[in-house]
Amino acid sequence: MDRIKRNERMAALTKWLTEAPNKIFTLSHFCDQLGTAKSTLSEDIDILRKTFAQFGLGKLETVTGAAGGVRYRPWVSPEETQRFLSELSAELCTPTRLLPGGFLYLGDILSLHDLVSKMGVIIAQQYYDAAPDFVLTMETKGIPVALMTSHALGVPLVIARHSSKVYEGSAVNINYVSGTDKHIDTMSLSRRAVQPGQKALIVDDFLKAGGTAKGMTDLMAEFEVEVVGTAFVVATETPAKRCISGEKALLTMNVDPDDPATLAVRPSDWVMDLAK
Amino acid sequence: MDRIKRNERMAALTKWLTEAPNKIFTLSHFCDQLGTAKSTLSEDIDILRKTFAQFGLGKLETVTGAAGGVRYRPWVSPEETQRFLSELSAELCTPTRLLPGGFLYLGDILSLHDLVSKMGVIIAQQYYDAAPDFVLTMETKGIPVALMTSHALGVPLVIARHSSKVYEGSAVNINYVSGTDKHIDTMSLSRRAVQPGQKALIVDDFLKAGGTAKGMTDLMAEFEVEVVGTAFVVATETPAKRCISGEKALLTMNVDPDDPATLAVRPSDWVMDLAK
Repeated sequence: MDRIKRNERMAALTKWLTEAPNKIFTLSHFCDQLGTAKSTLSEDIDILRKTFAQFGLGKLETVTGAAGGVRYRPWVSPEETQRFLSELSAELCTPTRLLPGGFLYLGDILSLHDLVSKMGVIIAQQYYDAAPDFVLTMETKGIPVALMTSHALGVPLVIARHSSKVYEGSAVNINYVSGTDKHIDTMSLSRRAVQPGQKALIVDDFLKAGGTAKGMTDLMAEFEVEVVGTAFVVATETPAKRCISGEKALLTMNVDPDDPATLAVRPSDWVMDLAK
Repeated sequence: MDRIKRNERMAALTKWLTEAPNKIFTLSHFCDQLGTAKSTLSEDIDILRKTFAQFGLGKLETVTGAAGGVRYRPWVSPEETQRFLSELSAELCTPTRLLPGGFLYLGDILSLHDLVSKMGVIIAQQYYDAAPDFVLTMETKGIPVALMTSHALGVPLVIARHSSKVYEGSAVNINYVSGTDKHIDTMSLSRRAVQPGQKALIVDDFLKAGGTAKGMTDLMAEFEVEVVGTAFVVATETPAKRCISGEKALLTMNVDPDDPATLAVRPSDWVMDLAK
C-alpha cells in the first residue's frame, strides 16, 4: 500500500469520527487503519480539533485513562442554535399550520432529516454530562428527532407503544391519564428493551399538559430506570401547571384557540439564555 | 482570516458533503466558504474523490450542466453489504428472538442508529437512479430505517398513520386488508404531505403477505403519486404469493411456527447476486 498522505487521512478521520458520535476511538485503531505512526496521528488529531472548532463542525475531545482515546461530539454554538430555532419559529408561525383545536401541523418538520438531526444535536449536548444509556420516546411523531438525539449521544433508541404487539414479546403495560382530555390511555414497552439501573433521556415532539411524559416517567420507574432529563421540540406556554417539571423544549408556542391570529412560536427561554 | 490549508479544507469538505447526501454543491459555494480559488478547490475534490473510493467512504460525483456541481452519495460495496447482512442474519437467528406466532423480535435492531443508517444506505443506493421525491413508511417500526433511507437519498420522509389525528389536518383515509389475518384496517395520510406527480419509495420493516404495502401503494394512487420501489428489512420466505411484487428485502426469513429450531434468516438472493 502507498503511504497515505495527511490530506487523505484528514478526510478519512473526519468521516469515521463524525459518523460515530461519542464513541471513543483509540489512536492505535486509527494507526492500524491508516498505517501511520502514533506521533503523526496525534498531529493529525490536533489539526482536526482546530479545524472542527474553526468551522463549527463539532468538538474533538481527548479522553485519558485506560479506556482513553479520541471522541467526537456534535456541537452547535449558542448563536447557531438561536439562529436555527428562530428560523424554525418563523416557519411554524405560518397561519396555515394552525389546525382546529389549537394544534400545529408539524408533520413535515418532524420528518426532515436535516432539521431533526440538528434538533437532536441541540438536545443531546444538554445531556452529554448526564450520560443517559438510552433515549426513550413514545410512538409516533417524536421518533425521528429521538433517533437523531440518540445518534448524537451514541446510545440506543427505545420506543414505547400505545399497546403491546405480538412482535414485541412480553411487555410491561401501564395506564396513564392523557393530560389534554383526561382519558385513560395505555403505554407498553417490551420487557427486553431496557435494563434496571440504566439512565434514560425522554425525548418527544410536543408537550401540552405532560400526561404522556408523566406516563413515560412512570414506565421507567417500573423498569427501575432513572430519568435524567425530558426534552421536547415544542411546548405550549399554557397550561403553566404540568404533570412534569424540569423539562427542556426547543420552542415555546402560544395561541388563543378562538383567534388563530394570536399564534406565536419562539425559541424557549433557556435557549435565549445560552449565549449569555 | 489566515489562509486555510488543504489539510483543513479536506476535513471541512468531508463533513459538509457527507452530512448532506445527494445535495449538489457548486464549487463557488465551497470557494466562498473556504476563501480558495476554483482551480485549487477542484484539486481538493479530486483528492477527496480518490480518498473516499480508497477507504470505501462513499462516492463523490461531479454533476455537469447549469445546476451542476459536486454531490456525495453514500455507498456500501457489495462485499461489505454481504458481510453486514450476514452478520445481522446470524444475530437475528438467535432462538430467543422467536416470539409466539412465528414473529421475530426486531425492536432493538430497528432503532440502533448505526444499523438502520447502514440499512438505509444499502436500500437507497438501489434507488438513486429512480430518483424518488420522498420515502413513505407506515408507523411505527419502519420509521428509523425509512428516515435513514430518506437521508441517504436526500429527500423527505412521509409517515402514514393508522388513523387520522387532529394534529395532521385534513387527511386521506383508505381501508386495506391486512394480509396476515385478513381484517380490515385503516391507513391515513395528511393531505398536505405529498403532491400529485411525485415519485415515492416505500420502505418498511417487515413483509409477510404484503397487505400493508399494498395499502400504501393504493394510498399513493389516491394522491396520484407513482411508486418507484418497495423495500423491506425482512421478508418471510412464505407466503410465496403476495399482494405486491417487485419488492426488495435485505433479509429473508423462514420458520416452521411449530418448530422454532427451524428458524433461518439469510441475506436475500439479490443481495448475494450483487458481487457477481
